[in-house]
Amino acid sequence: MTENPQPSVPLSTMSRKELRELVRSQLQVLLERRDLQTAKAILVPVQPADIAEAIEGLPETMQVIAFRLLSKDEAIKVYEQLDSSVQQSLCEKFKRQEVIDIVDKMSPDDRARLFDELPAAVVRRLVAELSLSERQATALLLGYEADTAGRIMTPEYISLKEEYTVGESLERIRSLAHVTETVYSLYVTDSDRHLIGILSLRDLVTAQLNQTVGEILSRDFVSVQTDTDQEEVARIIKRYDFLAVPVVDSEKRLVGIITVDDILDILEKETTKDIYALGGLQADGDNYFQVSLLTVARRRVVWLLVLLVTNSITASILKTQRDILQDVVALSFFIPLLTGTGGNVGAQSSTVVIRGMNTDEIWSLGSFQVIRREAMAGALLGLVLGTLATIWASVFIVPGQIAVAIAVGMSLLAISMLASVAGSALPFLFRSLKLDPTLMSAPFITTAVDVLGVLIYLNLARMILQSNSLN
Amino acid sequence: MTENPQPSVPLSTMSRKELRELVRSQLQVLLERRDLQTAKAILVPVQPADIAEAIEGLPETMQVIAFRLLSKDEAIKVYEQLDSSVQQSLCEKFKRQEVIDIVDKMSPDDRARLFDELPAAVVRRLVAELSLSERQATALLLGYEADTAGRIMTPEYISLKEEYTVGESLERIRSLAHVTETVYSLYVTDSDRHLIGILSLRDLVTAQLNQTVGEILSRDFVSVQTDTDQEEVARIIKRYDFLAVPVVDSEKRLVGIITVDDILDILEKETTKDIYALGGLQADGDNYFQVSLLTVARRRVVWLLVLLVTNSITASILKTQRDILQDVVALSFFIPLLTGTGGNVGAQSSTVVIRGMNTDEIWSLGSFQVIRREAMAGALLGLVLGTLATIWASVFIVPGQIAVAIAVGMSLLAISMLASVAGSALPFLFRSLKLDPTLMSAPFITTAVDVLGVLIYLNLARMILQSNSLN
Repeated sequence: MTENPQPSVPLSTMSRKELRELVRSQLQVLLERRDLQTAKAILVPVQPADIAEAIEGLPETMQVIAFRLLSKDEAIKVYEQLDSSVQQSLCEKFKRQEVIDIVDKMSPDDRARLFDELPAAVVRRLVAELSLSERQATALLLGYEADTAGRIMTPEYISLKEEYTVGESLERIRSLAHVTETVYSLYVTDSDRHLIGILSLRDLVTAQLNQTVGEILSRDFVSVQTDTDQEEVARIIKRYDFLAVPVVDSEKRLVGIITVDDILDILEKETTKDIYALGGLQADGDNYFQVSLLTVARRRVVWLLVLLVTNSITASILKTQRDILQDVVALSFFIPLLTGTGGNVGAQSSTVVIRGMNTDEIWSLGSFQVIRREAMAGALLGLVLGTLATIWASVFIVPGQIAVAIAVGMSLLAISMLASVAGSALPFLFRSLKLDPTLMSAPFITTAVDVLGVLIYLNLARMILQSNSLN
Repeated sequence: MTENPQPSVPLSTMSRKELRELVRSQLQVLLERRDLQTAKAILVPVQPADIAEAIEGLPETMQVIAFRLLSKDEAIKVYEQLDSSVQQSLCEKFKRQEVIDIVDKMSPDDRARLFDELPAAVVRRLVAELSLSERQATALLLGYEADTAGRIMTPEYISLKEEYTVGESLERIRSLAHVTETVYSLYVTDSDRHLIGILSLRDLVTAQLNQTVGEILSRDFVSVQTDTDQEEVARIIKRYDFLAVPVVDSEKRLVGIITVDDILDILEKETTKDIYALGGLQADGDNYFQVSLLTVARRRVVWLLVLLVTNSITASILKTQRDILQDVVALSFFIPLLTGTGGNVGAQSSTVVIRGMNTDEIWSLGSFQVIRREAMAGALLGLVLGTLATIWASVFIVPGQIAVAIAVGMSLLAISMLASVAGSALPFLFRSLKLDPTLMSAPFITTAVDVLGVLIYLNLARMILQSNSLN
């Protein structure tokens, strides 16, 4: 959290985007003219977040000059807001001492995140130069698994003792306010650093000055472990409307806290990961618009190769049905309709189920009930689509070939049911196998629906055409 | 925000899900036995959020009984956490006075959200019975457009005057702490209610008691208007790490604040809406697992009907190519591969672009650069897939028919490029037409890729086969 919840931007009618663009273009002009004094002056009233965006929009060679215009305190705030790729490129261009000054003052959780993305050699050099306490804080965080509470927590919190009075506590907050992430959630520990209670600044401010912390603290509270997944931490903070949640180690000793502002960033990254996975892309959590073209292609090709394999099976099956496709060429007109509809009905079911798992909403029903409901929805949709498709095909596309139109309609019904069952059941299956349903579901649903869909369609057509010719 | 950032749940090793399930099953057994005293007792140490989830899991007839076990204060907290469909069903079952007592004590923003979803007649009755100040607060919020800052703000904030001393301000906070959403962000207004500055409780606690508010307030701050879109509010709070943002009317008078905990709920709903739209479903913001089967089908059928129309065009095009499909039946084996790959490459591009728009990350590049990059990625992917598909088709599926294999490979290259250009360009087009790219992109991309893809494929095949037979 910021020192002051609302730093300095003029209360103007200008939108943030316009402001940012104005600052960027002013900066660019002034830097081209080498008018550093004026450039420095225009940045003074601008918020760190907006300066960061303006710097990101500058040509790379100007970024480092613009950054050097900032005062040291301001520079740290701006640096923390920069995109990690810009952080890295600046890091490479700074002189050694500048980097150390900045990195030393970053909060340990932000620093751990930066180090995650720098080359190992650079990290070693930087860690070595940090002050002892900063080094310890960072090394501590880096010791935990990625994406766990341990990695995202900050060790910069205020702890109190039970015997402190409210007045003493307020005095302690006053003296520590400049080095801590938040002063609003306060943590009470015993002599062995075990967390025994929490209280809020609200509690302190509304209490009498001579009461003790022990009298007003809350001994029942929610905490997370260092190895709790960051998504679970986000869910807890969201669910209980917390401003921060304490992190304890396996012996229940307080080791850090996680604040709600960090959770907002994590939620955005996790959402991007989920949306990418549903769209058939891999995500590494970095900014897609700043990675190289080869990386872009690499992250997409996996899913497309899976499709190639799936479709080689579909093509082989179509080949075994060559005779009927040759006899009744009209059957091939409807293949895109059937595989397309199957794929989309399956995607609708799996989207609902996977999102329901990620928001915990799905557990209001059991998995069996969900699958049954989806199967019924699939049947209903299949009935509507099948009827419409039969009419449409027999009137417009294949008039006179009613058997083909009926085969299309019946297949649509069968494929919709199949797709909605596969789309809803496979995420549960993957979850119970401890695989990520968001990543795993799409390839298997597509394969099942395409391969079985084509088989159902052509065999149904064969049956209907045969019984038709027997009559 | 809650009064105390961490209410009462035992610090146990039990997971939240286990706890909730335990409470639910205990409640159910006790209610079946009509042992209301014990049921009441087991709920005392449980957090409102967990009680709400336990109640949601009970059979509908028991929900109202379980709810009545709660003390009035507890009931309000639990009610605010309940899913809106459960809120509604409870609302219909309560006796009139009970409803009014609860609704009267809900915070105005939560109440406005409940009223949004209740039948108009019920709302009128409830509004009429509220106390005057509550009625005014709610009517005020209800007067703003849905999904704007006005609708989600709370008028329950603490305002200060410039001439107050720090000591007087702390006294005012002490006396108002129980009726306000947050005490951490404080707002300074002049005699006409114009917002002239803000300060945080942190600023107050670290200042001298005899300083005045005017000396320590920050006059440069970020605010939003009542008609600012809620997604924009979420972005601002996230970007600046705010705990709350003030809402002003067109004359810059302070009318409310929006707190970070409400933003977390809004982000989840907006994400679900986006994910559903990308998966071809409509979302109304309510819990999908609690709506009726007909509603489920209705929300999906629109997209499937669009597909039906798209595919009727594709089928008509295939029909015009009937001669070549009849002559070379092997061509039809690859139709699912081509439309499937096209659809997926298009979805990958549009997913990246749409997500980039929603997170603002995309603006580090211009729209032209994004489309060019996607086109190149499409070409690269098409080259890889086309080569592999040509080899695979000529070896396994249609040995001896090299012309068909080459047509498949070349079409894959063309379709990949087409799909990635359509997938990246259409979202920009819809955005510039003020249409929602998340909703609009998929149907148009699918249509373009399917129809053009099939045309490209069969015409390429025709050309290659003809030149082949001429040799």
